[in-house]
Amino acid sequence: MFYHDNSLQYKVRVDKPNPAFAKLLQQAIGGIEGEIRVCLQYLFQAWGSRGPKKYRDMLLDTGTEEISHIEMLCTAVALNLDGATNELKDKVAGENPIVSNILGGMDPRQVISSGLTAMAVDSNGVPFNGSWVVGSGNIAADMYANVMAESTGRVLATRLYELTDDFGMKDMLSFLITRDAMHQNQWLAVLEDLGGVGVNLPIPNTFPTEIKVPEFDYAFVSTNIDQSMTQDGRWTSGSSIDGKGEFRVVPAVPGAPTPDLGMPDVKGYAQAQQMSGEDKGLLENIKDTILP
Amino acid sequence: MFYHDNSLQYKVRVDKPNPAFAKLLQQAIGGIEGEIRVCLQYLFQAWGSRGPKKYRDMLLDTGTEEISHIEMLCTAVALNLDGATNELKDKVAGENPIVSNILGGMDPRQVISSGLTAMAVDSNGVPFNGSWVVGSGNIAADMYANVMAESTGRVLATRLYELTDDFGMKDMLSFLITRDAMHQNQWLAVLEDLGGVGVNLPIPNTFPTEIKVPEFDYAFVSTNIDQSMTQDGRWTSGSSIDGKGEFRVVPAVPGAPTPDLGMPDVKGYAQAQQMSGEDKGLLENIKDTILP
Amino acid sequence: MFYHDNSLQYKVRVDKPNPAFAKLLQQAIGGIEGEIRVCLQYLFQAWGSRGPKKYRDMLLDTGTEEISHIEMLCTAVALNLDGATNELKDKVAGENPIVSNILGGMDPRQVISSGLTAMAVDSNGVPFNGSWVVGSGNIAADMYANVMAESTGRVLATRLYELTDDFGMKDMLSFLITRDAMHQNQWLAVLEDLGGVGVNLPIPNTFPTEIKVPEFDYAFVSTNIDQSMTQDGRWTSGSSIDGKGEFRVVPAVPGAPTPDLGMPDVKGYAQAQQMSGEDKGLLENIKDTILP
Amino acid sequence: MFYHDNSLQYKVRVDKPNPAFAKLLQQAIGGIEGEIRVCLQYLFQAWGSRGPKKYRDMLLDTGTEEISHIEMLCTAVALNLDGATNELKDKVAGENPIVSNILGGMDPRQVISSGLTAMAVDSNGVPFNGSWVVGSGNIAADMYANVMAESTGRVLATRLYELTDDFGMKDMLSFLITRDAMHQNQWLAVLEDLGGVGVNLPIPNTFPTEIKVPEFDYAFVSTNIDQSMTQDGRWTSGSSIDGKGEFRVVPAVPGAPTPDLGMPDVKGYAQAQQMSGEDKGLLENIKDTILP
Amino acid sequence: MFYHDNSLQYKVRVDKPNPAFAKLLQQAIGGIEGEIRVCLQYLFQAWGSRGPKKYRDMLLDTGTEEISHIEMLCTAVALNLDGATNELKDKVAGENPIVSNILGGMDPRQVISSGLTAMAVDSNGVPFNGSWVVGSGNIAADMYANVMAESTGRVLATRLYELTDDFGMKDMLSFLITRDAMHQNQWLAVLEDLGGVGVNLPIPNTFPTEIKVPEFDYAFVSTNIDQSMTQDGRWTSGSSIDGKGEFRVVPAVPGAPTPDLGMPDVKGYAQAQQMSGEDKGLLENIKDTILP
Amino acid sequence: MFYHDNSLQYKVRVDKPNPAFAKLLQQAIGGIEGEIRVCLQYLFQAWGSRGPKKYRDMLLDTGTEEISHIEMLCTAVALNLDGATNELKDKVAGENPIVSNILGGMDPRQVISSGLTAMAVDSNGVPFNGSWVVGSGNIAADMYANVMAESTGRVLATRLYELTDDFGMKDMLSFLITRDAMHQNQWLAVLEDLGGVGVNLPIPNTFPTEIKVPEFDYAFVSTNIDQSMTQDGRWTSGSSIDGKGEFRVVPAVPGAPTPDLGMPDVKGYAQAQQMSGEDKGLLENIKDTILP
Repeated sequence: MFYHDNSLQYKVRVDKPNPAFAKLLQQAIGGIEGEIRVCLQYLFQAWGSRGPKKYRDMLLDTGTEEISHIEMLCTAVALNLDGATNELKDKVAGENPIVSNILGGMDPRQVISSGLTAMAVDSNGVPFNGSWVVGSGNIAADMYANVMAESTGRVLATRLYELTDDFGMKDMLSFLITRDAMHQNQWLAVLEDLGGVGVNLPIPNTFPTEIKVPEFDYAFVSTNIDQSMTQDGRWTSGSSIDGKGEFRVVPAVPGAPTPDLGMPDVKGYAQAQQMSGEDKGLLENIKDTILP
Repeated sequence: MFYHDNSLQYKVRVDKPNPAFAKLLQQAIGGIEGEIRVCLQYLFQAWGSRGPKKYRDMLLDTGTEEISHIEMLCTAVALNLDGATNELKDKVAGENPIVSNILGGMDPRQVISSGLTAMAVDSNGVPFNGSWVVGSGNIAADMYANVMAESTGRVLATRLYELTDDFGMKDMLSFLITRDAMHQNQWLAVLEDLGGVGVNLPIPNTFPTEIKVPEFDYAFVSTNIDQSMTQDGRWTSGSSIDGKGEFRVVPAVPGAPTPDLGMPDVKGYAQAQQMSGEDKGLLENIKDTILP
Repeated sequence: MFYHDNSLQYKVRVDKPNPAFAKLLQQAIGGIEGEIRVCLQYLFQAWGSRGPKKYRDMLLDTGTEEISHIEMLCTAVALNLDGATNELKDKVAGENPIVSNILGGMDPRQVISSGLTAMAVDSNGVPFNGSWVVGSGNIAADMYANVMAESTGRVLATRLYELTDDFGMKDMLSFLITRDAMHQNQWLAVLEDLGGVGVNLPIPNTFPTEIKVPEFDYAFVSTNIDQSMTQDGRWTSGSSIDGKGEFRVVPAVPGAPTPDLGMPDVKGYAQAQQMSGEDKGLLENIKDTILP
Repeated sequence: MFYHDNSLQYKVRVDKPNPAFAKLLQQAIGGIEGEIRVCLQYLFQAWGSRGPKKYRDMLLDTGTEEISHIEMLCTAVALNLDGATNELKDKVAGENPIVSNILGGMDPRQVISSGLTAMAVDSNGVPFNGSWVVGSGNIAADMYANVMAESTGRVLATRLYELTDDFGMKDMLSFLITRDAMHQNQWLAVLEDLGGVGVNLPIPNTFPTEIKVPEFDYAFVSTNIDQSMTQDGRWTSGSSIDGKGEFRVVPAVPGAPTPDLGMPDVKGYAQAQQMSGEDKGLLENIKDTILP
Repeated sequence: MFYHDNSLQYKVRVDKPNPAFAKLLQQAIGGIEGEIRVCLQYLFQAWGSRGPKKYRDMLLDTGTEEISHIEMLCTAVALNLDGATNELKDKVAGENPIVSNILGGMDPRQVISSGLTAMAVDSNGVPFNGSWVVGSGNIAADMYANVMAESTGRVLATRLYELTDDFGMKDMLSFLITRDAMHQNQWLAVLEDLGGVGVNLPIPNTFPTEIKVPEFDYAFVSTNIDQSMTQDGRWTSGSSIDGKGEFRVVPAVPGAPTPDLGMPDVKGYAQAQQMSGEDKGLLENIKDTILP
Repeated sequence: MFYHDNSLQYKVRVDKPNPAFAKLLQQAIGGIEGEIRVCLQYLFQAWGSRGPKKYRDMLLDTGTEEISHIEMLCTAVALNLDGATNELKDKVAGENPIVSNILGGMDPRQVISSGLTAMAVDSNGVPFNGSWVVGSGNIAADMYANVMAESTGRVLATRLYELTDDFGMKDMLSFLITRDAMHQNQWLAVLEDLGGVGVNLPIPNTFPTEIKVPEFDYAFVSTNIDQSMTQDGRWTSGSSIDGKGEFRVVPAVPGAPTPDLGMPDVKGYAQAQQMSGEDKGLLENIKDTILP
């Protein structure tokens, strides 16, 4: 269950409002690397957590923290948009090209749709999408999803840090960058808590390891038509990361002949010309697909 | 540059066509855990690769292999749909409830839109979405994105394996499961090649580490209103994963007072009632947001 | 700033797990009438609130309550999915048609993607979309958006109530239905607090009322080619709802001749045949669009 | 059934073409506040109308009028884009930065995709989305959806009015603003026709009012951890809007203990570590979720 | 400008309501092959029509006709859903598996969201998407888009015809199939009106034909690694369709060496390991990409 | 099965990097007219090809070629973005308005999300959407979809050609324009191979031609309320394109009275007021919809 107070987790100060920067901040709110995504991702993982209880607790802690981050960023957007309309109006009375300039750097919907506030969209105005919320029911897969989210999130925050010289914004971003670093450590700590990389690989580690196709196991498949172009790397030889095999390179070679799907179904209404072959019947079609 | 032949990478055999299973396979084609995503993800990462050349080469190798996986799965979908229309027709001539049953387990668009073939959609018919293709320009962030993609992909494949008793489909899925395990190893091998976890954390590791807010560094923020509920875990104490700090727990405490956004802009046309306060002016509003 | 504890706001009990009902519940989580939408909608409105402070406070209160509702519904989905995989497995070993039946009533992704937990999607598996989060910067417009959200939300909940005979689920839905009724009252109370319907119409009420086209003011435009078909209603005669005019019926009549866009731009590469007319030039084209 | 002529409902005149304004106008065509949405919304409500016939008739009247509004706006977009390509070409021959300026204020797809005409997208180029078309089968819920659509639509139109100084565009927008005001009156008139607010609350008013959880009825739930922060408002005390209860404030308090989802399903392939607890079995898990 | 009456263009009769068929019909309403798409496509093409006026007129005629088709299909959906709720209720009181069956064949949102009426979605509940509305400003390209829309639309309608044995539905579908055939003829007639295939190819025919790369002109590029596998077809030899060249087969051969993007930008925050190479500088990087 | 080498199909050279042009190029990568679409479209058509084998082979050839085109365009985007960050940084240290200008012409996500590389999005940052991948199971419908894709693709490429004066970019675009012209010829050649337009119309040509409504056959339906406005065209008289009928004009006239959907279902929870009519019962409602 959830509660709030009227404060912010960290101060949000804008020395010089900048509508163009408000647009960039939207990526950290409603973008795939943004805070709505991690917030919902950790909360949905918590609400679906099966197994030891400590993981649910921890996910709730951090999922709740992320709501406070969305709040900070939305406040930052509103403050950066202050005065944007007045500025626009002055420009419109003047030259059209200048209007273009201003509008170009802004998200126009932050003026005409939201009235100078944040929206649940990314920096191009593309709406947040629930498909980004990853929760697989497998905690190791989910932790890698979380490390990935915090990594691309921190990359984004460092770039935003470079794109502003506003002291207040740099300060707020420093805070978010610090938290993203901690959260990377945190999700990797969960993987260590689960036994470390060796124990957890391959994910899921509960699927019987004897079910596999051995000739493709630990094999780096080179699809380069000139195999000699394949450069050595940690992934081409030596012990595999899960410690259970040896990396090797194999060339891509065909494993089955051309599939034969047979004639179209009569009632599916393909073109007449597609019917003008010999239909070997369903059974034969399927058999043909089997390697000798 | 790309080439093909008319073969498949691995045999695709369907012993007993099953339209309901064709629907499930769509998740592995056009879903967020699916093969179109990893194919485009590895190729876009390759095409944008800056720095040592060996990473571009490797990403092209595996991105190209994934096209062959999409091909196998699309072939499997087409074979599983064989006869679906005929079966439907027979049912329609009979009782409506039975039609419902059949249609319920199928994706209706595999009959009425695609003519018994695969589509670029997931198992609910939701179209593939380009936002899932992750390439950040930071190779460590991208490798975690790739591990995550292969982990959720392998979880998906193992569940599909459980949901069929068709020998051919189990065989094809064993192949895909084997490759997903290798690819998890492969992307983690790249991280090792880059120096290992310690060297790479936090991501990005090129951002100056002195820019941070120390009191939030390595701090697990408990947002639980009863702090005593926070359970110990690898993430609450001990050395951090990057080896550069010590985990600790800090309670969530407010860091800034209620933000004050001031009056609405006159030309934004808010309600008259929103104007009936004291507007302290832009400068004051912003100052108020600053902590004393 | 936000906090949580490990409890639920109201009890969630499932007497007999039902995967088909889990699918229906998704509409109340990630659908347009669902709780993620109202949660983010109220919070974004709070974070962008300009004018009297009491509205921000109130919106935070209820936006935070909605997170607890998402939590309850996600828990309900997980409990309804318990055992779904085992059931499926038994079926697969048997007859395919029965598998279809089961799969048809379920969201397949709740098994193969999320591992028997809730997702940020609607009852068809369509992801939550950030465009549904409405915050216009005009509090009256936003209150109507909120009434609408709670109204369609309560309609949804009452239908879900009808579609289950599980005592626990009916109990949980009674709670949600009760809250939706209160919230409808609450948002209408804000409109009353703002001065009532008369004062607030038309929205926005800060736009100068003298800017209008009088002949279309308070006029119900009948587009029926047989005007005599227009039935009387509260909207065809009598005082207007805002008390500032009289409703009347006017027939739809043309107000401007066919627009003439002129020739295509040469560098836009239309077909040659589109160029073969008389181009009157930009200025003339525009003038032609003006009524005499 | 539908008919057209070649005229416009109201004159569309552009004195000075402005590609940046063409981009803004797209929000009123394909945005969530736009005319495609209200057009389809009123028509779908009409086509699904059950009960008294006069509502279907009225919805058809206004849904049809909205097609004429889309037509006017699309014409305005085309006229504002006249000359955009030539201007661009001149700039490209010059300095790149200036090209950026022009492109920035425009939707590039209005040049490169549509050939200087309108598209079914919003002002950021995000496509119109059918999920915005609301029709619930409950006429009161639908009327609030319609008031909301016309309110955010009129807010948008007034902002567009401010952002242009083109006489023709201001004239066209005055017409649309006038119609949006009438339509707000119109939908509220339907609610009055249905008996007024009191009779219609809560929506749906056909659900038995005795099914509720009394302790949460008419209760404003304060989720603020400091309850004393809750300010008085019309929604905290006094008679409820539906006249059937009294508003009061209750603090958010937990209503159920931590949910226990038990062990993951074996065949869902979670990590081994998630399995290493005591599984109390499905029945016990569900029971545990019930309050004592 | 647009008008309506209260009639339908063709009778809509449902002899035996079938909720599963209502779901299928949604594809013809809100799917990519559906009527909303063609309606908006023809109208947007009309409203953006530049050049001879007769094309605008004709597009308005048929775009308006398509609104009447949406109306018929929405009516058909509503009639097919009659009684669906009662049926569901009876089932729920009985056995859960049977509920699953019914729900499986239906779109659950047609019960819980729309109240037994049509929605602006496809047969999987995926919302209509404005990106499907094609209008390029080039009339020949648009006509092929229209032929394609009517062709996939007619394929869909014929499959729906096969999937019902309801006399009324077959009758309504015969009407739509008839119109789709006419519309295919109609759009091809426009191409003939424009001078026929030869004159119109390649599209756009106003781009200077001397701007091309001759060695790739009229060349079927075989990407098969075994060139001997390329089968003869109308497209491998003989006169080209535009009558201006001769088809021939050329093998896919590399045309440029591996691109070298150089080092990452320092302020983009890639990983340190990506920086550890020799950066030849921007100018050199670009030069390297040029063929000798 | 698929292979690659490290080369490009054609040289990609950028003389002067231009971030604004990088944004425009995205339309040719991830837009509806772009290369991801045609690549997946041809490959999915190949993988679902039933009937004569030569079509599968050919589609694989060209689908594979398109991957090489995506590769070229992604390389062009990366080269055009070189130096964009540095330029931005310099500007940020100066005046905000100038920052806006630069950002306005760029896709901000190409800096903050992707690190100066291409993404799977269009020129407005809207993600690629799998719904654009058309494969109907009917080869004639698919060929028209392919002609349409190549036509809008070539229109796009010619406009991009106009919008750059970079020699390298013009060269690369000449190559793509050349291939788009060939591919238009190629798909039309398939239609000729299938027997030509006459044999293939109407699509699908396997549906029994006697199932139709004769009075609407070959009839151009004029929805203009003033029939005399209907201009003559190839589509109003003369032999139809399929050579099986004569075009003629018929006015739009009602074909069925107002549909009567009856009372709402009691358990769907409409408003009470919707129930207060005379319900004639399901059977009567349906009968009423039938013409006398």
